Amino acid sequence: MDLVTIDDVRAAAERVRPHVVRTPLLAERWGDPDRPLWIKPESLQAIGAFKVRGAFNAIAVRAAAATDVVAYSSGNHAQAVAYAAAVHGLHAHIVMPEETPNVKIEATREHGARVVLCGAGQREAVAAQVVAETGGVMIPPFDDPNVIAGQGTIGLEIAEDLPGLRTVLIPVSGGGLASGIATAVRALCPDATILGVEPELAADTAEGLRRGQRADWPIQDRNRTIADGLRSQPSELTFAHLRQLLDGMITVSEDEIRSAVRELADRAHLVAEPSGAVALAGYRKGPIPAGPAVVIVSGGNIEPRLLREILAV
Amino acid sequence: MDLVTIDDVRAAAERVRPHVVRTPLLAERWGDPDRPLWIKPESLQAIGAFKVRGAFNAIAVRAAAATDVVAYSSGNHAQAVAYAAAVHGLHAHIVMPEETPNVKIEATREHGARVVLCGAGQREAVAAQVVAETGGVMIPPFDDPNVIAGQGTIGLEIAEDLPGLRTVLIPVSGGGLASGIATAVRALCPDATILGVEPELAADTAEGLRRGQRADWPIQDRNRTIADGLRSQPSELTFAHLRQLLDGMITVSEDEIRSAVRELADRAHLVAEPSGAVALAGYRKGPIPAGPAVVIVSGGNIEPRLLREILAV
Repeated sequence: MDLVTIDDVRAAAERVRPHVVRTPLLAERWGDPDRPLWIKPESLQAIGAFKVRGAFNAIAVRAAAATDVVAYSSGNHAQAVAYAAAVHGLHAHIVMPEETPNVKIEATREHGARVVLCGAGQREAVAAQVVAETGGVMIPPFDDPNVIAGQGTIGLEIAEDLPGLRTVLIPVSGGGLASGIATAVRALCPDATILGVEPELAADTAEGLRRGQRADWPIQDRNRTIADGLRSQPSELTFAHLRQLLDGMITVSEDEIRSAVRELADRAHLVAEPSGAVALAGYRKGPIPAGPAVVIVSGGNIEPRLLREILAV
Repeated sequence: MDLVTIDDVRAAAERVRPHVVRTPLLAERWGDPDRPLWIKPESLQAIGAFKVRGAFNAIAVRAAAATDVVAYSSGNHAQAVAYAAAVHGLHAHIVMPEETPNVKIEATREHGARVVLCGAGQREAVAAQVVAETGGVMIPPFDDPNVIAGQGTIGLEIAEDLPGLRTVLIPVSGGGLASGIATAVRALCPDATILGVEPELAADTAEGLRRGQRADWPIQDRNRTIADGLRSQPSELTFAHLRQLLDGMITVSEDEIRSAVRELADRAHLVAEPSGAVALAGYRKGPIPAGPAVVIVSGGNIEPRLLREILAV
């Protein structure tokens, strides 16, 4: 299977540069002194999450001649595709499960996208139907080399800003973010330790990498974690990247995730969603090699009520 | 009186570049559509506030041959000088009032600074005494051309990132931040409207600019505002800048400041201190010309308990 290369990531960086925030790498003074903590705040992207990077790259490569794009997502990928499509003057059709919180449906519509609601478990079928009807180009959330290369631009920026990094910690769900960042970091900082982080309640990738093949956890199990952006599982393509590139996985408890959300608010001045805070939870849990450690804060889209509940403890 | 020039700001930018975060200018989608909202998040600086810019520039210019620096501050300037001194291998002596919250004293000591406690109203006299004893160089919080030029590097970055800006909104206290940013923006974007923002409870600068001379509000009046970083008053030097460069002042209520802290957390994914949120409160209050508007979020150092209290409403 062909994996994404550093050249693919470099090409993606050229394409997405006009459209994404080049997030700063923030030196934090409150980490472990032996493992200086750096934060990459992707929560500052226009839709509040890293997903714009992959969406812009995939649309630039695959929808250059198209008039319509299609995606299925209940989360940040929906808004990323809707936003990137609007910037490029394309019609976006976003398939979302009926149970999606209204605030996320409205946020997607605000970008001018058409939202197509579907029943549970129907979203891939309904998306295929929308593609057939509209002739639109499907933009998958992670199972796509262009999406992976787009997310990899984060790794490129980290290697530019901190070439001496020792460790990078990345949230893992479908694996697009981790595949992309790991591609760039492995190429540019070959001695770095690359760690994925998952909730214990959705630790299918940790199990899969131990066994050497993808593990399938029932969705009702994965849905238990508060980290609602980390309930997907890798595809064959992303799993192949993770297997080749990751040095290990750390799994974190729900309490550790909540603590990390609090720590980011109180010490880094950043509002993170639970999925965006797991890498910090992994840094706190360890073990982490001595030396500079970069934590990806992947997104900030948390419901105001949940933020208050987590902070109130 | 000689005012700071754009060349001074450009020289400052060269000096501080290795030491400060080049904060991104964030396009926000939730502002007034006729006045597209951009946020400059200085809360992401190493000590959580813009003050590092002025401190690094003043120390580079004035303490190049020194071994000791002295400052008086109960707030972000204390940590900025302590941090910049540590980076340059200088001894820092920071004079703080006895009633300073312990958390701020500890944060200053963590940078390796010596903290000298003093009685209310004694800090300038005690600082002068420390200067006499140590031969240290005094780094003032705002009444210094090098500090003003350092803060002005924010304006330089804004003009680079958004040359078509129509309005910039800046918190005003001692006036160093507003003097510096206004110097850069007036030079580079001559048609921009430059607005200062103050709490109604510490609106001495709004009154002073109306009258054409500095107004003196009793400190016990100014101390009523929750925006504890905005209780100072301009010096002759900063007032001369503000009088020449500002197009107007907006004053905001305590409730409007609290609302802005909430809005930044819930919509921009940023934790701001009340002083850091006043410019957004000013944007919401207006009047603001149509066109792109930049809001300076000057700092994020809020007590966790106060953050929770404000969010809980």
